[in-house]
Amino acid sequence: MLRSAEIIAVGSELLTPHRTDTDSLFLTSRLNDAGIVVRRKVVVGDSREDLADAVASALSRADLVITTGGLGPTDDDLTREAVAGVLGLELDEDPSIVASIAARFARRGSVMPEINRRQALVPRGATVLANPAGTAPGLLIEAGDRMVVLFPGPPRELSAMFDAHFAPRLAALAGSRRLQRRVIKIIGRAESEVDAVASPIYTPFASGPLPVETTILASAGQIELHLSAAGDDDAAVAARLEAGVAALAEALAPFVFSTDDRSLEAVVGGLLAARGWRVALAESCTGGRLAGRLTDVPGSSAWVVGGVVAYANEVKIAELGVPAATIDAMGAVSEPVARAMAEGVRDRLGANVGIGITGIAGPDGGTVEKPVGTVVIAVAATETLVRTFRFSGDRELVRRHSTSTALDMLRRLLLDLPPR
Amino acid sequence: MLRSAEIIAVGSELLTPHRTDTDSLFLTSRLNDAGIVVRRKVVVGDSREDLADAVASALSRADLVITTGGLGPTDDDLTREAVAGVLGLELDEDPSIVASIAARFARRGSVMPEINRRQALVPRGATVLANPAGTAPGLLIEAGDRMVVLFPGPPRELSAMFDAHFAPRLAALAGSRRLQRRVIKIIGRAESEVDAVASPIYTPFASGPLPVETTILASAGQIELHLSAAGDDDAAVAARLEAGVAALAEALAPFVFSTDDRSLEAVVGGLLAARGWRVALAESCTGGRLAGRLTDVPGSSAWVVGGVVAYANEVKIAELGVPAATIDAMGAVSEPVARAMAEGVRDRLGANVGIGITGIAGPDGGTVEKPVGTVVIAVAATETLVRTFRFSGDRELVRRHSTSTALDMLRRLLLDLPPR
Repeated sequence: MLRSAEIIAVGSELLTPHRTDTDSLFLTSRLNDAGIVVRRKVVVGDSREDLADAVASALSRADLVITTGGLGPTDDDLTREAVAGVLGLELDEDPSIVASIAARFARRGSVMPEINRRQALVPRGATVLANPAGTAPGLLIEAGDRMVVLFPGPPRELSAMFDAHFAPRLAALAGSRRLQRRVIKIIGRAESEVDAVASPIYTPFASGPLPVETTILASAGQIELHLSAAGDDDAAVAARLEAGVAALAEALAPFVFSTDDRSLEAVVGGLLAARGWRVALAESCTGGRLAGRLTDVPGSSAWVVGGVVAYANEVKIAELGVPAATIDAMGAVSEPVARAMAEGVRDRLGANVGIGITGIAGPDGGTVEKPVGTVVIAVAATETLVRTFRFSGDRELVRRHSTSTALDMLRRLLLDLPPR
Repeated sequence: MLRSAEIIAVGSELLTPHRTDTDSLFLTSRLNDAGIVVRRKVVVGDSREDLADAVASALSRADLVITTGGLGPTDDDLTREAVAGVLGLELDEDPSIVASIAARFARRGSVMPEINRRQALVPRGATVLANPAGTAPGLLIEAGDRMVVLFPGPPRELSAMFDAHFAPRLAALAGSRRLQRRVIKIIGRAESEVDAVASPIYTPFASGPLPVETTILASAGQIELHLSAAGDDDAAVAARLEAGVAALAEALAPFVFSTDDRSLEAVVGGLLAARGWRVALAESCTGGRLAGRLTDVPGSSAWVVGGVVAYANEVKIAELGVPAATIDAMGAVSEPVARAMAEGVRDRLGANVGIGITGIAGPDGGTVEKPVGTVVIAVAATETLVRTFRFSGDRELVRRHSTSTALDMLRRLLLDLPPR
């Protein structure tokens, strides 16, 4: 039975400052689902010696060793050879793989280059995992009570192959103990504030017959509490997690926006749809990022009318009806301008609710009175709510905080929660 | 002299599906600058045994072993103990570290908890690296001709400590051989097409007295060629890389948009600024993502007037002047509508050039005639160019391809290159 895994990502590009291994996140998620813990992850370059050493070392510790990458057709692609070498297996060319690669090239009107034959080499006794999305097949090799599985590196190929050809085997091999996860997403509170409230609640859940592990993650103004538990009885694990989620969500309301893994924009979209409302956006410093987030959600045409990116003041005046005198008197970054933007876009575009954002994202444009990070957000429905914030961080972070805060103001309005 | 390094990231959260090690990217960049190659990266959990095994194994291969994380005050933080154990060193409490941690707490008006004394434990003979941004100091331990350096995990603490206290030592230890890098960025060609053109050019550069290593990376419709070379003579290395970049850029023109690491939106912004032009955006399926990318660039108010997110057809009609009859006759995703959007936003917002994007990003809304991925892009300056594309991938990828292609059409117009 497989209980622990190690993942080896292969490729010299993963040892540069430009690329990080992300395949292992997908793999970890799928392995955890099957109750398998990932104990170590390794990245090695396209060196047969390093690769062989990493595989041999992983096999000495873990039940399951998974490699990603190095299955291409070039001289740099050494995973097949290195793994076969460690396990003392011969490599044979599989004519059916050659045929399927050649057919793939033929469908695109070209002829298979000779080098692609390397992708048809199979360690003797290995099981071939077909690649629905590319030329390189995967390989599964059983070595005693251990298993080595070779996946291609491209995420699309890896995930399609894993789910189609490996997941069914894994379910059988991994036994009945499965891990479940729940995520609570929070906005408007710092990590330490969340932990101060949450810690007395999740700590008791960490012991007992079905211990729940809780992790706090923070990124760009959003806090996530990850709860996980493992056991043989799926219903009991689910109930235990649900009890933890319910207790935490109650203690942390109204800052909790999601307990079902939905993004903030998806939650807000669902609330708009439920009320039959459509929103219009008037953005200055966020330059379309708020509209972009809301329209990331499939089906968003039901609740997004559209928006105006009013980057220049003349657009604020001509397209949104912001009085030029207000801009002159108060400045473009001011509560009256944000209010006029939100009300203007709501009325001009015929929406139920309008959002206006104006601010100084930086790095330039700050003043003593209105430093970089000063952002004014207005939400105009039947009444108009206007708030001024001072966000910290670089341009990207200020823009991200601005769109998240605007979405949260709209969320609270739609849920009749006290405003921020 | 230090030539090769291995990086060990410590922390059980890095073995979940939610977190990836990014500290190693910063470290790799700094180490490469000093001519040190990273040969392997490892992630281990908060287990003393796994950590000790990883450190011992790395020391058997690399001159320099760097750990990140596991220097906090709790029982989970085991890096100090594990490394001292591997090297057979006693741990002593350093009173000056205790004092500085206590002072840090005092400045915030609180008293140092007893557990923070763990952060003052120093392996005998180690050099302490002060932490400008947190409580945990770093540790540098020389072991014969090898070196182990322990850094805290939080990126802000790591980078501040590295640059203030480790970089100066590294420059002395790493010798005079330094690595330089150049990146060529390409749009509008597939990875295999780029490689077919580039390979005969970069292959000869891979040999000789100053070999240049070339890697191709692809992501979301953009291809990058990374060239790197190392040597004692900075000027000679720079000249060798420049020769490679020049030869590749000539062969791959007009698809090369950057050889100085600038993003596509920054390049287009620079071209707009150089011509004294301002652009306006009319976006349907991309929902503000194009405006968002252009305004990501600091200073973009000089070349972006603004835009209209015309998600609903009534916004296309009322705000952009698209004739309702055209939408009825041709459909919202059609060349006449894209043209009317681009020309409408240019004229309404008083810009020199307008871009219109209308398409079907999916997952729903596709038809046999216009499947998901069908996107029409118009660029209206003195004349209007309209093109219909069929992008593959999910909603996010179709939207990304759409904004990149629109930026590339504008880039070519501004450079008087043949249109796509």
